[in-house]
Amino acid sequence: MKTIFNHRSIRKFKNNPINTNVLNKILEASTRASNTGNMQVYSIIVTRSPEIKEQLWQAHFKQNMVIEAPIHLTFCADINRFNKWCETNNAKPGYDNFLWFYNATIDAILASQNACLEAEYNNLGVCYLGTTTYMAEKIIDILNLPQGVIPVTSVVIGYPDEEPELTDRLPVDGIVHYEKYKDYNTHDIKNIYLEKEALEQTKKLVLDNETETFAHVFTDKRYKKEDNIHFSNEFLKVLKKQGFMNQ
Amino acid sequence: MKTIFNHRSIRKFKNNPINTNVLNKILEASTRASNTGNMQVYSIIVTRSPEIKEQLWQAHFKQNMVIEAPIHLTFCADINRFNKWCETNNAKPGYDNFLWFYNATIDAILASQNACLEAEYNNLGVCYLGTTTYMAEKIIDILNLPQGVIPVTSVVIGYPDEEPELTDRLPVDGIVHYEKYKDYNTHDIKNIYLEKEALEQTKKLVLDNETETFAHVFTDKRYKKEDNIHFSNEFLKVLKKQGFMNQ
Repeated sequence: MKTIFNHRSIRKFKNNPINTNVLNKILEASTRASNTGNMQVYSIIVTRSPEIKEQLWQAHFKQNMVIEAPIHLTFCADINRFNKWCETNNAKPGYDNFLWFYNATIDAILASQNACLEAEYNNLGVCYLGTTTYMAEKIIDILNLPQGVIPVTSVVIGYPDEEPELTDRLPVDGIVHYEKYKDYNTHDIKNIYLEKEALEQTKKLVLDNETETFAHVFTDKRYKKEDNIHFSNEFLKVLKKQGFMNQ
Repeated sequence: MKTIFNHRSIRKFKNNPINTNVLNKILEASTRASNTGNMQVYSIIVTRSPEIKEQLWQAHFKQNMVIEAPIHLTFCADINRFNKWCETNNAKPGYDNFLWFYNATIDAILASQNACLEAEYNNLGVCYLGTTTYMAEKIIDILNLPQGVIPVTSVVIGYPDEEPELTDRLPVDGIVHYEKYKDYNTHDIKNIYLEKEALEQTKKLVLDNETETFAHVFTDKRYKKEDNIHFSNEFLKVLKKQGFMNQ
């Protein structure tokens, strides 16, 4: 499908606003995704207000696309609405645990990918913000998320003001296993990463970061162990605070 | 996009095998999805062997579509390949923690949704198996998943042998919030669930399950608190065992 194979993340957007019909189509596309037991345990927050976008920009490590893009969607794992429905019916919900945070995460992520593809199908550009989980506590404050609701990913959407090349990927055979998992030996790993390591942009990144190899760019610069541990603990605290760790 | 709006889960499949070119297209579509830092921390296991499918059928609560569907894809959070690449380069990975299990989950789920849409675009039917996380330990054994790898969702794919109606969804306005989260009061909840509760199939489910309301079908029959707690704890044990809780 052309839309899937043409995807590139867009980080520069034009000023043009997005038509409400198009936005509604994107949101409706989200809700057509598969979800757990048709319980739809997710919510989508649409932010267009410049004031709230600025707060979100602060939370998302000040990435400029958050300000530039006319629409900011925050996809949340949400058991709150379902719980309230149960309580309205005098049924006793038992979803305040890790399993349901995880089910709700899957629902939210599937919904987000439908939104992105529908947006791209309508000539819009999108970019996922991985910073959502890093800064979940801050985002919960900004968006007033109640107990039972956690932001799991965000997407900025707008008309593209850049035309980036398709991003490289590992060869499909490096990602896929047939019948069972075949673990990788050093030879396999070298083959799988050969092409990526040979790219001009890879070599430039190694130079710019002044690291020994491209792998060191990740381990020593972008995603360092101490940061990973810090954000892991912060995120687990959020799970507890929002009421998902009662088991 | 027609493919998104036509989606229904398929649970009955014809015998026809799936052409290798089509399978390869589906797998390639998966890899075009956005992912964390272009690290692609996921793997896809393609199972076609009847023997292994039977083992997976056992694990997936004996749902017959697992046997019937010619292709079974297991999407895994996978930090193992990336770790091995780091080690090959004498870089020290720090991804054995919850944050990276979560990042890898998002990668795997985005890849799965691209696979599903590409499959449907090629006239195939798909169904997600939510049982993957419930039975993660068993699936790890069946598929030989090493440390750093956890199955997070599965999809069965084949030519449809049924034409189900589109599944109902809550009204989009029940799922979407503008600017900030607006919590639900009893009146909102009643409105959001009105249409769903009025459906003939809902009434039939309440009768068949002999429950007081439709909400009780979920709380007392399908997803009971004690089961949720059991599977939460099992899944957290798997996270620990596969090396994702070192923080």
